[in-house]
Amino acid sequence: MTEKKSDKKYVYFFGKGQSEGKADMKMILGGKGANLADMAQGGFPVPPGFTITTEACAEYGKIGREKLFKTIESQVKDALKKLEKTTGKSFGKGPNPLLVSVRSGAAASMPGMMDTVLNLGLNQKTVDAMIKLTGNPRFVMDSYRRFMQMFGNVVLGIEHDVFEHELEALKKSRKLKLDTEMTVEDLEKLVATYKKAVKKVTGKEFPEDAMEQLWRGVQAVFDSWDNPRAIKYREINDIRGLIGTAVNVQSMVFGNSGDNSATGVAFTRDPSTGKNEYFYGEFLINAQGEDVVAGIRTPQQITIKGSKEWAKRHGITEATRKKQYPSLEEAMPACFKELDDIRMALEKRYKDMQDLEFTIENGTLYMLQTRNGKRTAAAAVKIATDMVKEGFISEETAVMRVEPGQLDQLLHPVFDKKSEEKADKVAVGLPASPGAATGQVVFNAADAEKWADAGKQVILCRIETSPEDIGGMNVARGILTARGGMTSHAAVVARGMGTCCVSGCEEVIIDYAKKQMTIGKKLVKEGDWISLNGSTGAIYVGEIATVDPQLTGPFGEIMKLADKYRKLGVRTNADTPTDAARAVDFGAEGIGLCRTEHMFFEGKRIISVRRLILTADTVKKLKEKYSTACLETLKKKADKAELPAIKQYQQALAELLPLQREDFIGIFKALKGRPCTVRLLDPPLHEFLPQDAKGVKEMAKQMKITEAEVKNTIDALHEFNPMLGHRGCRLGITYPEVTAMQVRAICEAACAVKGSQPEIMVPLVGNVKELAMQRRIIEEVIAEVEVEKKAKLAVKIGTMIEVPRAAVTADKIAAEADFFSFGTNDLTQMGCGFSRDDAGKFLGDYVRKGIYDYDPFNVLDQDGVGELVRIAVEKGRKTNKNIKLGICGEHGGEPKTIEFCNSLGLNYVSCSPFRVPIARLAAAQAAIKAQKK
Amino acid sequence: MTEKKSDKKYVYFFGKGQSEGKADMKMILGGKGANLADMAQGGFPVPPGFTITTEACAEYGKIGREKLFKTIESQVKDALKKLEKTTGKSFGKGPNPLLVSVRSGAAASMPGMMDTVLNLGLNQKTVDAMIKLTGNPRFVMDSYRRFMQMFGNVVLGIEHDVFEHELEALKKSRKLKLDTEMTVEDLEKLVATYKKAVKKVTGKEFPEDAMEQLWRGVQAVFDSWDNPRAIKYREINDIRGLIGTAVNVQSMVFGNSGDNSATGVAFTRDPSTGKNEYFYGEFLINAQGEDVVAGIRTPQQITIKGSKEWAKRHGITEATRKKQYPSLEEAMPACFKELDDIRMALEKRYKDMQDLEFTIENGTLYMLQTRNGKRTAAAAVKIATDMVKEGFISEETAVMRVEPGQLDQLLHPVFDKKSEEKADKVAVGLPASPGAATGQVVFNAADAEKWADAGKQVILCRIETSPEDIGGMNVARGILTARGGMTSHAAVVARGMGTCCVSGCEEVIIDYAKKQMTIGKKLVKEGDWISLNGSTGAIYVGEIATVDPQLTGPFGEIMKLADKYRKLGVRTNADTPTDAARAVDFGAEGIGLCRTEHMFFEGKRIISVRRLILTADTVKKLKEKYSTACLETLKKKADKAELPAIKQYQQALAELLPLQREDFIGIFKALKGRPCTVRLLDPPLHEFLPQDAKGVKEMAKQMKITEAEVKNTIDALHEFNPMLGHRGCRLGITYPEVTAMQVRAICEAACAVKGSQPEIMVPLVGNVKELAMQRRIIEEVIAEVEVEKKAKLAVKIGTMIEVPRAAVTADKIAAEADFFSFGTNDLTQMGCGFSRDDAGKFLGDYVRKGIYDYDPFNVLDQDGVGELVRIAVEKGRKTNKNIKLGICGEHGGEPKTIEFCNSLGLNYVSCSPFRVPIARLAAAQAAIKAQKK
Repeated sequence: MTEKKSDKKYVYFFGKGQSEGKADMKMILGGKGANLADMAQGGFPVPPGFTITTEACAEYGKIGREKLFKTIESQVKDALKKLEKTTGKSFGKGPNPLLVSVRSGAAASMPGMMDTVLNLGLNQKTVDAMIKLTGNPRFVMDSYRRFMQMFGNVVLGIEHDVFEHELEALKKSRKLKLDTEMTVEDLEKLVATYKKAVKKVTGKEFPEDAMEQLWRGVQAVFDSWDNPRAIKYREINDIRGLIGTAVNVQSMVFGNSGDNSATGVAFTRDPSTGKNEYFYGEFLINAQGEDVVAGIRTPQQITIKGSKEWAKRHGITEATRKKQYPSLEEAMPACFKELDDIRMALEKRYKDMQDLEFTIENGTLYMLQTRNGKRTAAAAVKIATDMVKEGFISEETAVMRVEPGQLDQLLHPVFDKKSEEKADKVAVGLPASPGAATGQVVFNAADAEKWADAGKQVILCRIETSPEDIGGMNVARGILTARGGMTSHAAVVARGMGTCCVSGCEEVIIDYAKKQMTIGKKLVKEGDWISLNGSTGAIYVGEIATVDPQLTGPFGEIMKLADKYRKLGVRTNADTPTDAARAVDFGAEGIGLCRTEHMFFEGKRIISVRRLILTADTVKKLKEKYSTACLETLKKKADKAELPAIKQYQQALAELLPLQREDFIGIFKALKGRPCTVRLLDPPLHEFLPQDAKGVKEMAKQMKITEAEVKNTIDALHEFNPMLGHRGCRLGITYPEVTAMQVRAICEAACAVKGSQPEIMVPLVGNVKELAMQRRIIEEVIAEVEVEKKAKLAVKIGTMIEVPRAAVTADKIAAEADFFSFGTNDLTQMGCGFSRDDAGKFLGDYVRKGIYDYDPFNVLDQDGVGELVRIAVEKGRKTNKNIKLGICGEHGGEPKTIEFCNSLGLNYVSCSPFRVPIARLAAAQAAIKAQKK
Repeated sequence: MTEKKSDKKYVYFFGKGQSEGKADMKMILGGKGANLADMAQGGFPVPPGFTITTEACAEYGKIGREKLFKTIESQVKDALKKLEKTTGKSFGKGPNPLLVSVRSGAAASMPGMMDTVLNLGLNQKTVDAMIKLTGNPRFVMDSYRRFMQMFGNVVLGIEHDVFEHELEALKKSRKLKLDTEMTVEDLEKLVATYKKAVKKVTGKEFPEDAMEQLWRGVQAVFDSWDNPRAIKYREINDIRGLIGTAVNVQSMVFGNSGDNSATGVAFTRDPSTGKNEYFYGEFLINAQGEDVVAGIRTPQQITIKGSKEWAKRHGITEATRKKQYPSLEEAMPACFKELDDIRMALEKRYKDMQDLEFTIENGTLYMLQTRNGKRTAAAAVKIATDMVKEGFISEETAVMRVEPGQLDQLLHPVFDKKSEEKADKVAVGLPASPGAATGQVVFNAADAEKWADAGKQVILCRIETSPEDIGGMNVARGILTARGGMTSHAAVVARGMGTCCVSGCEEVIIDYAKKQMTIGKKLVKEGDWISLNGSTGAIYVGEIATVDPQLTGPFGEIMKLADKYRKLGVRTNADTPTDAARAVDFGAEGIGLCRTEHMFFEGKRIISVRRLILTADTVKKLKEKYSTACLETLKKKADKAELPAIKQYQQALAELLPLQREDFIGIFKALKGRPCTVRLLDPPLHEFLPQDAKGVKEMAKQMKITEAEVKNTIDALHEFNPMLGHRGCRLGITYPEVTAMQVRAICEAACAVKGSQPEIMVPLVGNVKELAMQRRIIEEVIAEVEVEKKAKLAVKIGTMIEVPRAAVTADKIAAEADFFSFGTNDLTQMGCGFSRDDAGKFLGDYVRKGIYDYDPFNVLDQDGVGELVRIAVEKGRKTNKNIKLGICGEHGGEPKTIEFCNSLGLNYVSCSPFRVPIARLAAAQAAIKAQKK
């Protein structure tokens, strides 16, 4: 097998005007290799070298070192010969020895994750030749000992400490403080002790043969592809589908060969603001690349302007600056000029902001690397929009340039960076809802509301939240929970509200009774200040200053572009006028999911709701007994003892009607004529009953019944699997009066607010007959209100598709539905058989083991749950080709899911207000990608 | 609309040799009407008449009485004229008045559910003419007062009591005991009082006009189609798709016109045994049909032989019999001869056992009705097999003649009928598992085992059962639970064991502490005798004698025929050698579902299982910490404090291995080389932990840990929706060692029992990767055991399809599976979003409202869950065309579901042992039906 493959090209040479590789060969040359080839080809001053492909790395994993090296040996040797010829140097020998760097470089950037060896090719012979050649023994010996350290650690697997120990011992014996104080003799002595140490640890001599060094260096880079650090990095950054790393063998140039030498890194624009004002970067004279980032010496700035601002920021006088920290523009004006030209040429060539590495060796500039630079969200937006204006890129490209998920950074208050760095971080929970919050701790929703009314800013801390806490959550600046995952009640509600939330922090132990908690070892009492970073999950004790978001300027421009290209509509999930208004500000085209159950908890409504629940079962049984669904008939048939229940039931509904109507009026007003999909009551009734003894006592008092009666009701409504229980339209089937009341409230509100576009959504339909029955009731009430109000209402009636049975019988259901909205949260729960509240116990493990690529509650499981959606779309359109299709699960704001929705041709996605901009951008990207295909 | 339909035929005349209807017109003439038409056409002595169609009834419901009657008026009048001509009598007038009966008759038999009026056409005029004609005023007046009662009640809606009251008052005033003692004068007086009563109650005179009587009679029959009694009957007997009842208007003949007259009912064969020994039936001289069933006079037997046996049974001497109760054969030999010839002619004509009604009027025999007779299961089997031998019907017809569900009656012990009738019935629960049981009450599983060991027969009574009770359930004769539906744990397990069970009886209130219960008002203590009828749900206090089932003879023959025609294989769900052996006796071709979790509860195993659970989480976390799945590696890496958990975990598995192996050896032996699908561990681990405080205490003691530790473990494993939690193969993924242990036990057992055919089934797969990972482990263990035992094992590896995601990704899963077994219980739960434990709250209502035709846990929901099955079958075969497909949910033994499985071409169904014969028969019927199509 190896024999057959031997004519495959595994090694690509690069050098000025004669590169074998090309810019579009990233997958096999890696990002760095492809860029070096391309830069060299383009005439940029790149030290020549060659790249061993990622395919070689993949083969290495499959067939092993020995076979692979045999396969590629001749190609490597040929490339090395060419390199010797190009540079006029010779590898492993004098008089002008060729030294090389050996660096990793995968198709995706993984900075610092894999291994690098510099100065490879040094041994006693080449060291001597170099000294003769340069006349600079200190430089050579320093390079040698650095090489030994690096090779020893990376290739030979010797702990850093071993070398550090020898270094420190030497410095101690010589009473030196800095490495740079070492003399040539010191360095020679150090090299000798290093050699001994290597022998001692590995049992073998440090390899003198340059070829052996090279092969072992290559092997080390290949091995580093699968080191735990790299694997973790790929996991965190969702880097998939790569086969391995390439290896770049490049002739060394030395920024540390004297005061006419330097090394530096630079960005072609400011990576944190995106501004194109000046050349942003740092350099050091007489240093190697690693020194710039090591922090031992203070790096200097590239431009005069940058340097002056930097000095000002650090309180350094212009005189000191000029003397100690001159800019490259000042220190090496010719090199600066050349570099600045290269900067502009590179941006022109790559049409994106570049992250550069350069070295100046004895006054000659070399480019060691260029790549698209990492940037903040703000910079990404700014650069993309600027580059359109500058004529570098098209609008579509600009849209593709911004990572939608990043936008979140721009929508919430954030901590002032410096203050956060200094703050007292006590634990890290799950980053459940982004943003930053600082406030005083309270431990229950009622206190939160009380304190907030008193003008305080509060952080609500709960073991976990329940729908009862909604009022307190609404007024809190931030929410902290000890239990619950990324899709727990707290997380979902907080994201919907745009409130910062850190959830499921196991180190938080709350004592409600004492109104205090411990976070790790820290005791935090009611009223103490804490701060939460909902984007990282960090929890701090104390107050941290926050900075407000900026939504205009480039952000507005990129959103406008997104809207121009996207095909999918973007709606929001919102239950309050505040949320609705905010979402409209963020560009929402309507509400895709307005939950009504939250409205059942507010203020005194819960009393009516509980009265309803207490009488509902009796009413239900009476209906069966007297074979009638009509309450008026029931009242006539019932005997005296049975009458009060029916009356109280009706009374409770009558109390709720005007309150619900006011809710909808507020929301419809905020929407200003945009459509609003209202979901009828969904949760099981037991959610409206008290959860603890105190609540039971209260309810008994409110309702004027015994605590035992309250408990009986709770017991009667208890469910083993509430997820699969008596909820959704099943409630509406059992209690059609509740459906009728809600529909009446919606219709009356629609009459009150001109231009309203209500759409009524029946939840949890599994069987077309459920929808048909609910539809009859809804249509009856609409007709009644139309007569009463002398109005004509255009109300759409549709359903959630969230039960697998609904998906596979969508052809039948579509006949009764004006729209489908995919409730992918529940469809995931039922489709995969995962309880959102319980799956935490194994889902992490499942994702780690690759059973699911992503947590299916975060990213729609396209193969499975997506297949149910696909089936439903296909079947639904078969019987109702005009059916409107949308998605309103948590997935509606997730870019990969949005791309999937775009591919199915859905009409819209709906997501929490703060995800609306993300969804707009993701939808545009999906449309552009689809067009390209 | 009505105008257009007026040329439609709504009325069909019947009479000797001139019937307009035909035998195959049941749907529009009803069963009775079609039979009368056919009998008359065939030359049988049927009193002529006409039938108003079921379509008229349907129209009546739609367009109302007035419009319909206008539409059919001329047809009815024409038919009446023809009837007058044929009979030579005139309707509503003398000298020879035509009297008619008006009877209901739908396409399906609904005996006694709808209304009948006899003697219609009587009024003062016709009464006088009849008296003149017959010279028998007593007969005429008696007919008149009967007519008034019947018409008054059925048509005018006057309560029976009103007439009874007048009758009793008259008899009292005349000091009479029997109706027959009334004189003509008495009867005349009675008729007069009846007329007054009718006027008083209805405000109108009793209708004198015969035509008005007829129309109102017809209307009453139409109305009775939808009376609550009829609706309920159709619901109970699952009669669907009918549009209404037909009305049969037939000229009256009088069995009460003197001693040369008689009336009777008869079956052509014995309806309870099916024997074809003699003509089975009863008659009364000088009586009308209603008298035979009214029980006022003792009916006489048809044949001499039957009469003699009857007399013997009732201790009546031959002399008395001959004098007081002569058979028809003796009393009216000519008529008997004619009737006996007709009996045989009818069987020949209809090729089935017939249920006849006849009347003899003045020595002339009339046939009033014939229909296929209702029969017991035993009779159905006997008649079907006999008729094949007699050349009446084909084998296929014989197979179609037996209702599979009925077979259940033949497989279990039953109560002696007479004893059950006399017994003290105290409540009725759900008929959860058929059969009859009598025994002494115990209230927990341990006592059940103890008492059974002591040779007592016990009834285990529990509030509800849990897997812990399995031992006690196994030894109990019957099981009674206060809670839980038809698919509760108790019900499912009991059906599997073939143990009689009555579940969910709310009147049963158990006090475990006092070891007693109340059933209604009855107090029952430990050791008291009770009896359960699992086929009806009846609960009796006291002992009732039981009768054992007979499985040979005709039963064996019909089973043989079924096997000849069925295409589907039939396996059983069995977890023990006893069940396996029983199922094999019942004809099972292997085990389709062998659950292994029950094996985890038995005896001391639970201790090992609990030890496993206590250490499992620690092991899991250590694996993550040290990034290894190998316990041996873990042991090397772990520190001292961590070691004991790993060791105990291994130890627990080592303890379980030999026990599991012995379980499988027993089962494989019982199967004698038949295949056995073993499902790996399925339930969530918390099911193995104690449920109450006492259990916690015990476990703490057993495990030598604190109660708090036990509780912590229970809390940690608690799930909000256990149905969707950490169970099935999710356990195997987290704890691969458990999978490996089970597979090893299976393989070692297979090596120990020659010819075993184990098939290993991975439960709850939703994603092909789960199956692939488990498959790798399974294959590894198989390979290990093969090496160790120097054996070659042919083990199939497959999965349950029970998660909707699995169904829609079956193409992928099939690539890793040798077989699919549809777990339709869980597929229903997840597909419909119904928790089996909770759905009782609304499912009844859903079925009543017609949202689902049947409870989807009893009869597979073909439209929805069935669609998921269909998708899975299609996709599965696409990638693996040889995949073996079966079903192992509770539905596997349900005839409608079996027909569906047959239509999909599944390979087999699997059901509890006692359903195996039912499944065999249903499979044969499905195959025959499919062939006909």
